[in-house]
Amino acid sequence: CNTTRSRNWALHGAPIFADLTPREMKAVRAYLHNIQEMKLTDARSETLKKNSILLMELHLPKKHEALRALDRGQAKPPRQARVVIQFGDQTKPNITEYIVGPLPSPTSHEIKTFKGKRPVQFESRPITIVEYDHINNILEKITSRAHRLLFETTGGFSYTNCSDRCLTFSDIAPRGLAPGERRSWIMLQKFVEGYFIHPIGFEVLVNHRDLDPENWTVEKVWYNSMYFDSIEELLEKYDSGHVEKIKLPSHSDDDLYSTYIPRGQSSTPTHVHGPKLVEPQGHRYRIESNFVEYAGWSFAYRVRSSAGLQVFDLRFNGERIAYEISLQEAIAFYSGDTPAAMQTKYIDAGWAMGTSTYELAPGIDCPEIASFIDLYHYFDTDKPVLHKNALCIFEMTTAMPLRRHFNSNFQGGYNFYGGLENTVLVLRTTSTVYNYDYIWDFVFYQNGVVEVKVSASGYIHATFFTPNGLHYGSKVYDHVLGNLHTHLIHYKVDLDIDGRENSFESIDLKYVNFTNPWSPKHFIVQSKLHKTQHKTERSAAFRFGKKFPRYVHFYNPNEKNKWGHQKGYRIQFNSHAHSVLPKGWREENGISWSRYRLAVTRHKDSEATSSSIYAQNDPWEPAVLFDDYINAEDIVNKDLVAWVTVGFLHVPHSEDIPNTATPGNAVGFFLRPFNFFDEDPSLASKSTVIIRPDKDGKPKVQRWTPEVVGHCVTDKPFFYNGTYAGV
Amino acid sequence: CNTTRSRNWALHGAPIFADLTPREMKAVRAYLHNIQEMKLTDARSETLKKNSILLMELHLPKKHEALRALDRGQAKPPRQARVVIQFGDQTKPNITEYIVGPLPSPTSHEIKTFKGKRPVQFESRPITIVEYDHINNILEKITSRAHRLLFETTGGFSYTNCSDRCLTFSDIAPRGLAPGERRSWIMLQKFVEGYFIHPIGFEVLVNHRDLDPENWTVEKVWYNSMYFDSIEELLEKYDSGHVEKIKLPSHSDDDLYSTYIPRGQSSTPTHVHGPKLVEPQGHRYRIESNFVEYAGWSFAYRVRSSAGLQVFDLRFNGERIAYEISLQEAIAFYSGDTPAAMQTKYIDAGWAMGTSTYELAPGIDCPEIASFIDLYHYFDTDKPVLHKNALCIFEMTTAMPLRRHFNSNFQGGYNFYGGLENTVLVLRTTSTVYNYDYIWDFVFYQNGVVEVKVSASGYIHATFFTPNGLHYGSKVYDHVLGNLHTHLIHYKVDLDIDGRENSFESIDLKYVNFTNPWSPKHFIVQSKLHKTQHKTERSAAFRFGKKFPRYVHFYNPNEKNKWGHQKGYRIQFNSHAHSVLPKGWREENGISWSRYRLAVTRHKDSEATSSSIYAQNDPWEPAVLFDDYINAEDIVNKDLVAWVTVGFLHVPHSEDIPNTATPGNAVGFFLRPFNFFDEDPSLASKSTVIIRPDKDGKPKVQRWTPEVVGHCVTDKPFFYNGTYAGV
Ligand SMILES: [Ca+2]
Ligand SMILES: [Ca+2]
Ligand SMILES: [Ca+2]
Ligand SMILES: [Ca+2]
Ligand SMILES: [Cu+2]
Ligand SMILES: [Cu+2]
Repeated sequence: CNTTRSRNWALHGAPIFADLTPREMKAVRAYLHNIQEMKLTDARSETLKKNSILLMELHLPKKHEALRALDRGQAKPPRQARVVIQFGDQTKPNITEYIVGPLPSPTSHEIKTFKGKRPVQFESRPITIVEYDHINNILEKITSRAHRLLFETTGGFSYTNCSDRCLTFSDIAPRGLAPGERRSWIMLQKFVEGYFIHPIGFEVLVNHRDLDPENWTVEKVWYNSMYFDSIEELLEKYDSGHVEKIKLPSHSDDDLYSTYIPRGQSSTPTHVHGPKLVEPQGHRYRIESNFVEYAGWSFAYRVRSSAGLQVFDLRFNGERIAYEISLQEAIAFYSGDTPAAMQTKYIDAGWAMGTSTYELAPGIDCPEIASFIDLYHYFDTDKPVLHKNALCIFEMTTAMPLRRHFNSNFQGGYNFYGGLENTVLVLRTTSTVYNYDYIWDFVFYQNGVVEVKVSASGYIHATFFTPNGLHYGSKVYDHVLGNLHTHLIHYKVDLDIDGRENSFESIDLKYVNFTNPWSPKHFIVQSKLHKTQHKTERSAAFRFGKKFPRYVHFYNPNEKNKWGHQKGYRIQFNSHAHSVLPKGWREENGISWSRYRLAVTRHKDSEATSSSIYAQNDPWEPAVLFDDYINAEDIVNKDLVAWVTVGFLHVPHSEDIPNTATPGNAVGFFLRPFNFFDEDPSLASKSTVIIRPDKDGKPKVQRWTPEVVGHCVTDKPFFYNGTYAGV
Repeated sequence: CNTTRSRNWALHGAPIFADLTPREMKAVRAYLHNIQEMKLTDARSETLKKNSILLMELHLPKKHEALRALDRGQAKPPRQARVVIQFGDQTKPNITEYIVGPLPSPTSHEIKTFKGKRPVQFESRPITIVEYDHINNILEKITSRAHRLLFETTGGFSYTNCSDRCLTFSDIAPRGLAPGERRSWIMLQKFVEGYFIHPIGFEVLVNHRDLDPENWTVEKVWYNSMYFDSIEELLEKYDSGHVEKIKLPSHSDDDLYSTYIPRGQSSTPTHVHGPKLVEPQGHRYRIESNFVEYAGWSFAYRVRSSAGLQVFDLRFNGERIAYEISLQEAIAFYSGDTPAAMQTKYIDAGWAMGTSTYELAPGIDCPEIASFIDLYHYFDTDKPVLHKNALCIFEMTTAMPLRRHFNSNFQGGYNFYGGLENTVLVLRTTSTVYNYDYIWDFVFYQNGVVEVKVSASGYIHATFFTPNGLHYGSKVYDHVLGNLHTHLIHYKVDLDIDGRENSFESIDLKYVNFTNPWSPKHFIVQSKLHKTQHKTERSAAFRFGKKFPRYVHFYNPNEKNKWGHQKGYRIQFNSHAHSVLPKGWREENGISWSRYRLAVTRHKDSEATSSSIYAQNDPWEPAVLFDDYINAEDIVNKDLVAWVTVGFLHVPHSEDIPNTATPGNAVGFFLRPFNFFDEDPSLASKSTVIIRPDKDGKPKVQRWTPEVVGHCVTDKPFFYNGTYAGV
């Protein structure tokens, strides 16, 4: 039948979206290293003047090719890899991307360009371990010159020869003020557990553009609110009393400030385990490689090394809802009073956000009962890197009914009670982008709703406290300012509502006012649906700060449900986002997607992403300029893509110590069916319970699951009384 | 010590807020029935011309009296009851409220008036079972006259003598167009499981103001989009062919439409139980009568018969956060094409929202492991009514970390991993207000955050489909329109941030633009905190449709945390609310609180609530006019109350059949500490897990809970690897 066929084709096509295997990665590397003209060497070799592979990941086929396999069961298009190569060993160093295929035995490669052939500045490349090693070297030089100042400032910490009183550093981005620059503000911090929130009041601007680290220079130094042109100038003024000296309180190892060590009191016991999830009768979902099924849902998933979690070919009961839903970018733009703070505009895809998928702890990051899955990445490495248990999939109860009704008879009894527990499937990865930890969730509800959500945790980005800093955040510790910033997250949502041809409308309410038909001397005022069909991309790009419609509705103008309504889905936002810089202001060009809470464009294979790994280090003239996607193109009855921005303003406060906590710091959006089905598809769940009084008024339970849940939960059968009686 | 004393006083004071016991209810009833002049008779006796008790509930003492017990351990003020009496048996019938005390042996009663001595119209009283009995009687007369029309219309259904082909009715409110009226539009429906969504196209306007039901009249009839002045007119035109006859498809008992019976398919098994919560080592919270402790939290709770769930004396580690957080009102204002639909403006406190706390089903409405608690109500009754298992309290895991950080060493290993599971305590009741089911949650997080949330389920309010109805909703079944409506919920949040004297500010961002201090030919643009202190109630009342600040911040100007910041909390909204009618337009006066997303007023014992049980049937001149609370009063360093409106627009769609589902239909707000503590107070939790590599790189787990969770979850010890290695 149709559903079986649809399921088979979905399963057949899912490998199209599977990430590269280690074998494929090794084959691609070997193939490219064999091309003599490329002169590729190891990524981890010490020099910066070399040609080497920076990143490799699956390259997706064109959508119409993939659909042939997914919709018609035809052969899958050949697998290909996208490879980013840094060519440092030539007169004009450059970054070039290649498509290499077919996998697993590549025979060809071709250059991949960005839309409009926008160039990639060599200086916009992400930073590597090798470059950090050289930064460490220059910092050793700088700090040994400033050893006494640092030692006096910190009460005994130094960058080298330090055993348990060491300093470390954090570098921030972007690295300069214009394209082609590569000079970074670097903050020194005490190297203790949670060093991110231990700034010592010393920041230095290092120019590391030259591929010979011997030519790197110190351009500026900041110490205790003063700027200096060199370490020497600082030291001279420090010694001559022209600088106010910082004297941090002497460091105590008993100070638990930045650690996770428990302290303080609780009125109830926490030394025993709290509530935990169990599955008394086993998993109710199925995972087959990267293909997942749960309730009516099926989808394929993938974790891009460049930008993270993606879901493909999302179907409910075999009907496609979306071709792709994927994380594009995460940014955090800061304010502050130190140069590092003012300069910090993190654009995390440039920090290998997609590869920062570290191990998930069972019982903390995901429930003990979750399925934990390994991932492989190839970034800044010479062999594939295994990330154990980096993704998890689990079903959970929300401890809430999905629907319930108590049908009172208003006489102490009831006609019936009905209820269905709300359980969901969660697909989760995390990105630890240096100090911060993002938790990326896709949540699949039994009733056709998908929730896409990011929760924030980890350490705040903190700088040295100055009185003026209070305009930009809260003091969270002696000498530490938590700097205000805005988190924005961008998602691509390629909805395909029961097919590629979709339209988009917004729905608002307008008051109507008319004579009361049953009392003509009165008037009736009520709200009426006011639908606006958006015919062009430009008219469907909703800027922050402008009024946003009540409902945004994507539908298939060619398909109706049983009641004559066009089958549709709507996007419901759960977000406190707003824009972070004036439109067109310098770095804002690198995040032009952030202008829009929602933008709707025509699907184009050439507009695959809204950002790139190069935006962080060249936001001024970005390789991918999202705003270019938006023009006068027709979006009626076309393959549409919704681009969604969510986020929140984060003014750090004392409770961000030691870490930002997830409660209240989660944003995202729901995809909700709107006349897509004929009725709630969760009616298929056999977990429903119905209770009716029998002739004698005794409750009679109708259910389709075992009467006893299982000894782990309770060995008593379900019981319901239903009456409410006078006493 | 201080904390112990604070805890003892909180426990000592909690009974102040405990609902009336059955014994107290009976004593109050006996006391009042003994007062000869009152001439009280049974509420359930047939006549409407009688004096009887409509409602009784705890009457709260004045706040300063309660605080003497809570803050100083002094004697608790005497307990009192609030009693609503309907005096129908006198020349000018009236509603009078009394304060009766002291309990449990009352000796006195005095009249309780509303602020400004605003009168209560007798016609504004909630409807009772006895009145419904009389409405049933007149409907029997009406439907027997229209028997043939109804029988032909429905293919065999009738109101009386009907066995399995019966009709029932729904009446809507408000009941008229002006104060003093009591005439209700009544819709007929098929009396099958889920009758709310079975309108048959027949609506009748009954005037039931007279206390002698013999004098009740039919004022209008609506049938298939036509209005008639009487049943006779309708029947005559029906027979003479001047009315288009409705012929509903013949009713099939196999049509599961409005039922909970499972149908359709699922790709994974649901005939077994899904994930369930267990507590391997027992509860981690404490309940002592209405006093609850969890993590640092303590609070007292209560369920008002008039309006529902309330939390009092909310403290964290002994410091008060709020004196009261309580549900005030829930409304749903509709639009439509039939007279009943146009008229429907549900104001649910007038429908005994607080008493509609029906039994909670374990495993559906609350987890099996929850503590289920009984409630007692006294409304439209002659004895206290026991509601078994009507409230539940449970701890649950959110399957998410509260905080986590993976501290990579960027060389395939890590410095440490730390994490704490996010478990929460939930306090829950429900209100089934006729067709709709609201689920009321207070969620207490270990880190000082409280979430207040309402989730919507149950049947939609649906009317007979007409083509014009499509302006007001979706067709969800043959002949059925799901009518658009807006849900708004009002909460009183009497924050007492570490004491009664609080101030209020809003925080926005403003761009600043200045010369780059390290590159003078460049400019820096960044965001700066822009705080506005609101000095009067008027300036702190935020209308819907106007710009709302990024943060709204309540703080104690006299108390600072360790870092010098005023201790504060902020309210974070999770809501899609908007106003439902133009300001001042007729029924809008009855819900003047709904003008404001947030309003901040001085605490007054005389401004205890924002609504009343009388608003539903007289919204035009309401007994409680919230807008009157807002004036030029000073709110600096005063006892402040935040009034919070949340809600959402609901355009019903096919997936609302059979019931509105909770996913995406939950709104509320967070109370979040903002420099209230010195650091995250969840650091007190011993559930934290820290992992560090030992000298050999092997992970070493530091934890304070048992290594093995328990056989129900897993009998394997926790394991973490932490490395990410090349392969
Ligand atoms: Ca375009
Ligand atoms: Ca599409
Ligand atoms: Ca006032
Ligand atoms: Ca207060
Ligand atoms: Cu943040
Ligand atoms: Cu609704």
